[in-house]
Amino acid sequence: MTKDAMTDNASRTPMLLPRTGIGIDVHAFAPDSDPQPLWLGGLFWEGERGLAGHSDGDPVAHAAADALFSACGIGDLGTHFGTDRPEFAGASGVTLLAEAARIVRAAGFEIGNVAVQFVGNRPKFGPRREESQRVLTEAAGAPVSVTATTSDGLGFTGRGEGISAVATALVYPAA
Amino acid sequence: MTKDAMTDNASRTPMLLPRTGIGIDVHAFAPDSDPQPLWLGGLFWEGERGLAGHSDGDPVAHAAADALFSACGIGDLGTHFGTDRPEFAGASGVTLLAEAARIVRAAGFEIGNVAVQFVGNRPKFGPRREESQRVLTEAAGAPVSVTATTSDGLGFTGRGEGISAVATALVYPAA
Amino acid sequence: MTKDAMTDNASRTPMLLPRTGIGIDVHAFAPDSDPQPLWLGGLFWEGERGLAGHSDGDPVAHAAADALFSACGIGDLGTHFGTDRPEFAGASGVTLLAEAARIVRAAGFEIGNVAVQFVGNRPKFGPRREESQRVLTEAAGAPVSVTATTSDGLGFTGRGEGISAVATALVYPAA
Repeated sequence: MTKDAMTDNASRTPMLLPRTGIGIDVHAFAPDSDPQPLWLGGLFWEGERGLAGHSDGDPVAHAAADALFSACGIGDLGTHFGTDRPEFAGASGVTLLAEAARIVRAAGFEIGNVAVQFVGNRPKFGPRREESQRVLTEAAGAPVSVTATTSDGLGFTGRGEGISAVATALVYPAA
Repeated sequence: MTKDAMTDNASRTPMLLPRTGIGIDVHAFAPDSDPQPLWLGGLFWEGERGLAGHSDGDPVAHAAADALFSACGIGDLGTHFGTDRPEFAGASGVTLLAEAARIVRAAGFEIGNVAVQFVGNRPKFGPRREESQRVLTEAAGAPVSVTATTSDGLGFTGRGEGISAVATALVYPAA
Repeated sequence: MTKDAMTDNASRTPMLLPRTGIGIDVHAFAPDSDPQPLWLGGLFWEGERGLAGHSDGDPVAHAAADALFSACGIGDLGTHFGTDRPEFAGASGVTLLAEAARIVRAAGFEIGNVAVQFVGNRPKFGPRREESQRVLTEAAGAPVSVTATTSDGLGFTGRGEGISAVATALVYPAA
């Protein structure tokens, strides 16, 4: 049996096997001395304290992109958007996710779906969850779900020092 | 190709594609001034210090429910068990997981499996792992695996301030 | 419908359903008073500060093994490499991962793939990522992807106190 295709014994129909991936991203809130706009889940959050970081510091979009790369085994954000691609310095999370999806497809994979959960005290995400999912789903060309939780006051997310996000993705080697 | 069904080119047999989801939950231990019973992994742990939190504060069951919602792209615990459903205030983790599974199926998905790992110094989980898996599997109507680890003394879990749990789930759009 | 096989209504072809798993592992850096070699991602890192821990303390290999056990619902590292198997005390992460893969297959599962991301300030992983993937893929007998990120200076990983790793895995009940 190959790693990427399993043959169904009953019918000898080749089946496409999914591959799973994982992505984690953490960004600190920008210091008061250097305020930034907040971009999170592909959306701009007016009046909210922003995150520090390369590009626009959107941990939801970054974790989603990393999960896609991870599922394919083709590296991570640093591999693809490192210092040798200066055109992505300061790029939005949506732009990075769209480019990650393009790279993944060019490497011979279809995208099944991506799921991201972020952990942070704010912003209040529920009212804009569906809007965020629409923007990221359009960027990836595949379903992206986004959910939110808090860490019950514990750790750096609980102290309001930053936001973390964890994503999983499924991809399929293209036939 | 649709997002939810991929056609096998060899046979034109439609294939059901799984969707992956992620769920994270953190609860702080209740303060000595307000002791609580410990519910974790769907089980009551006699003599163990309990967790603070809404409902019974079971991060294993909550992460499992959130992973199911995440896989389907239909929101999170806050969406489904928020203040507009007061009948779930104080509900057990098992009750929430069973209701989450019902919601997911009503939304048109079959559940493949759910896997949860929690991070905490205690309780000692191994002797009751299979009991926990049976209780949560019955609640979800699909296999739920539960595992445990520590964070080697680091962070809020290592300092014994709380317990965190991370879950993944696979679901299938029902035919 | 059984939990492990879903019948495609169009053709009545039985389909193998994957199961997802999750694995988390954290190790603290060894104190200056007890320096250790660094093993991470199945590789030895010359001149880098090592991690404390049972066996060789490789959180990437340990998270991968735990994700495999989790996907199968057959326990965790403590279940399989606990004090009743002293021959694995001090075993390398590669040895543990290979033995985990053997146990998983003996329990009736095929391995689809494993994806691991670690969070830590060092070592600089990119230049040796493909080498790490080769070593762990050979150990598991299935594709293992490894990626790296930092936590932007936050939490115990940001303070350089340790390294955490999160893994997902897909397995299939063998036909």
